[in-house]
Amino acid sequence: MKNIAILGSTGSIGTNTLELVEALGDTFNVVGLAAGENTSLLLRQVEKFRPEIVSLKTKEAAAKLKERLKNRKVRVVYGSEGAEEVACFERNDIVVSAITGIEGLRPTLAAVRAGLRVALASKESLVVAGAILQAEAEASGAEVIPVDSEHSGIFQCLAKEKRENVKKVTLTASGGPFFQTPLSEIKGKSVEEALDHPRWKMGKKVTVDSATLMNKGLELVEARWLFGLRPSELAILIHPQSIVHSLVELRDGSTLAQLSPTDMKIPIQYALTYPKRVSSRLPELDLARVRSLEFYPVDEKRFPLIRLARLALEKEKSFPVALNAANEVAVEAFLNRRIGFSAIVEVVSEVVGLHRLSEAASLEEVFAIDRETREQAATLIKRRF
Amino acid sequence: MKNIAILGSTGSIGTNTLELVEALGDTFNVVGLAAGENTSLLLRQVEKFRPEIVSLKTKEAAAKLKERLKNRKVRVVYGSEGAEEVACFERNDIVVSAITGIEGLRPTLAAVRAGLRVALASKESLVVAGAILQAEAEASGAEVIPVDSEHSGIFQCLAKEKRENVKKVTLTASGGPFFQTPLSEIKGKSVEEALDHPRWKMGKKVTVDSATLMNKGLELVEARWLFGLRPSELAILIHPQSIVHSLVELRDGSTLAQLSPTDMKIPIQYALTYPKRVSSRLPELDLARVRSLEFYPVDEKRFPLIRLARLALEKEKSFPVALNAANEVAVEAFLNRRIGFSAIVEVVSEVVGLHRLSEAASLEEVFAIDRETREQAATLIKRRF
Repeated sequence: MKNIAILGSTGSIGTNTLELVEALGDTFNVVGLAAGENTSLLLRQVEKFRPEIVSLKTKEAAAKLKERLKNRKVRVVYGSEGAEEVACFERNDIVVSAITGIEGLRPTLAAVRAGLRVALASKESLVVAGAILQAEAEASGAEVIPVDSEHSGIFQCLAKEKRENVKKVTLTASGGPFFQTPLSEIKGKSVEEALDHPRWKMGKKVTVDSATLMNKGLELVEARWLFGLRPSELAILIHPQSIVHSLVELRDGSTLAQLSPTDMKIPIQYALTYPKRVSSRLPELDLARVRSLEFYPVDEKRFPLIRLARLALEKEKSFPVALNAANEVAVEAFLNRRIGFSAIVEVVSEVVGLHRLSEAASLEEVFAIDRETREQAATLIKRRF
Repeated sequence: MKNIAILGSTGSIGTNTLELVEALGDTFNVVGLAAGENTSLLLRQVEKFRPEIVSLKTKEAAAKLKERLKNRKVRVVYGSEGAEEVACFERNDIVVSAITGIEGLRPTLAAVRAGLRVALASKESLVVAGAILQAEAEASGAEVIPVDSEHSGIFQCLAKEKRENVKKVTLTASGGPFFQTPLSEIKGKSVEEALDHPRWKMGKKVTVDSATLMNKGLELVEARWLFGLRPSELAILIHPQSIVHSLVELRDGSTLAQLSPTDMKIPIQYALTYPKRVSSRLPELDLARVRSLEFYPVDEKRFPLIRLARLALEKEKSFPVALNAANEVAVEAFLNRRIGFSAIVEVVSEVVGLHRLSEAASLEEVFAIDRETREQAATLIKRRF
């Protein structure tokens, strides 16, 4: 039995992980949960899984939860420090890191420094601090296993291949809800339309990022750090069926690919049980029923953020931090209906266009650049919209 | 530098192998060649690659070649014993076994007994004597690496996985030239139409086998021996683009697949260089250009030989020997325009339907059953057509 802590337990990855833990019986034991503001769901999770430590975002929420749990032996903490405490709780074997945005960085880092297995869904952590996390993982012996379906697929295809054999790694993107929408109509798309993803059921931030393809852009940078790839070795293909998650082209002309039904439980489970594979009761892939797998090149006119993600891959340093910060602010403004869908691209492009590259070698610098860029983006939104 | 012998050097696999050897420069040295009756091509191959031993099918052809090569230091042999001598020539490191039909069995066995790496294209050898070849390979330490694109794909996908994780292995079939032909029109198809394969450029026997899907049936049995799979773990999907060669479904819901452009040089090279991968100058796979990969279930009404291949998988023993013999005779009669296309199925079904199962545990028994079945098939053809 392995002890598991889940950062972001009330989100999409978190709840899927808990369903898996339940289905797998005595394989995993939940010792820690960190959530945001969904106190009532966290309470139910505590009742069911009996962790030893839980964290919420605010002091108030934590106090409320503590009151409800006063008869239970469970430590209740809060804030970023609270999530970090859950991440490096001494009884942890595995940490599922699934807090969205740069907010996931400090807890992810805490789990990595503790030398644990980190099932990583918080892609923004690697995007803004890939070099730092990599160095810390090397020092501590932490094992970072990707949870994103594309990266899980790459990880599986690469498993025994030598790095020198890899010629190109392709991540697929569903194309999101607006892949076929006439360009002139994209501008006016509502929050509801952006959240209506054709294939995956995910959190709001990542669903909007899928509609702009920024999600795939962040994943390019994530793959760069997870697998040590050069920008020229990374590619994206639109694949509306979302069945082939990634492809690894080898230098002898062979390509290995990983496929599965669109269910996040598959890559989550793999990250938890690796190198073992455990039977799942999920529906089987039936290609004769799917009939056709389609692939399209990425149209950068339709998805201009991909160009910026490519720039981030090439420039590295502070550029990905700024790109991520601008995008987080713009997506939040869109979800709060302060700006329209196409203004996401407008805000991100303009803010990133003014960014002055710096080293971003320390965590302090990363957070400073993040803060500064967020202010610029917020100011731009206030001024223009 | 590895020494290589090629059995079937003037056939499709043989000539592709020699082109590869040439392209790879000093990696491989050709020491032996065995051919059928194409003396003039073998002569050119000898001039270019300077092997130390060559074999032809008949004594007459060998004498003719010897005369032409009298100034060269090359041993010229002939017949089945000649091919066997090439197969276990003492300087061999790798033997490419690519003689079509049961004719390939003795030389393949000789290479396996010699404990060499055997790059196996002669699928009929495994179909008729899988248990014998497997036992001999275990005893000698021979390394049998598949050359068929589907099996090479499975081999690559399985490399990383434990046997217990494998749930299902799917071989794809292009469907051949008659996949979309109305059933009523298939009967009258000519030799030229049957040989006009939409994807692969191959030898005549295997091309006709592709049109009847018997090739895929033989490959099912081949996969059973190569990978130790149960009949229920083996599946076929029609995939007209022939880009996904095989899929391995794992018990956790993940599927690994191998893809490549339709060029036999890719699996041949892999079998020669494994576990290394060497750069190839072949065209890259461009899925955005291919656009769509389609998959269809196999219609056993259209391709009734698949049902017989499934029976062979289940019954084993002498059944696959009889199936293969009846098919070899029927295909030859079709290629010689003695029978029509749909008579292949008729002859094979009728002959196999009368087959009485026996052990076929020794090579002698295998050849006896083969001879007997061939006579039955020949008699049927003579009587009816």
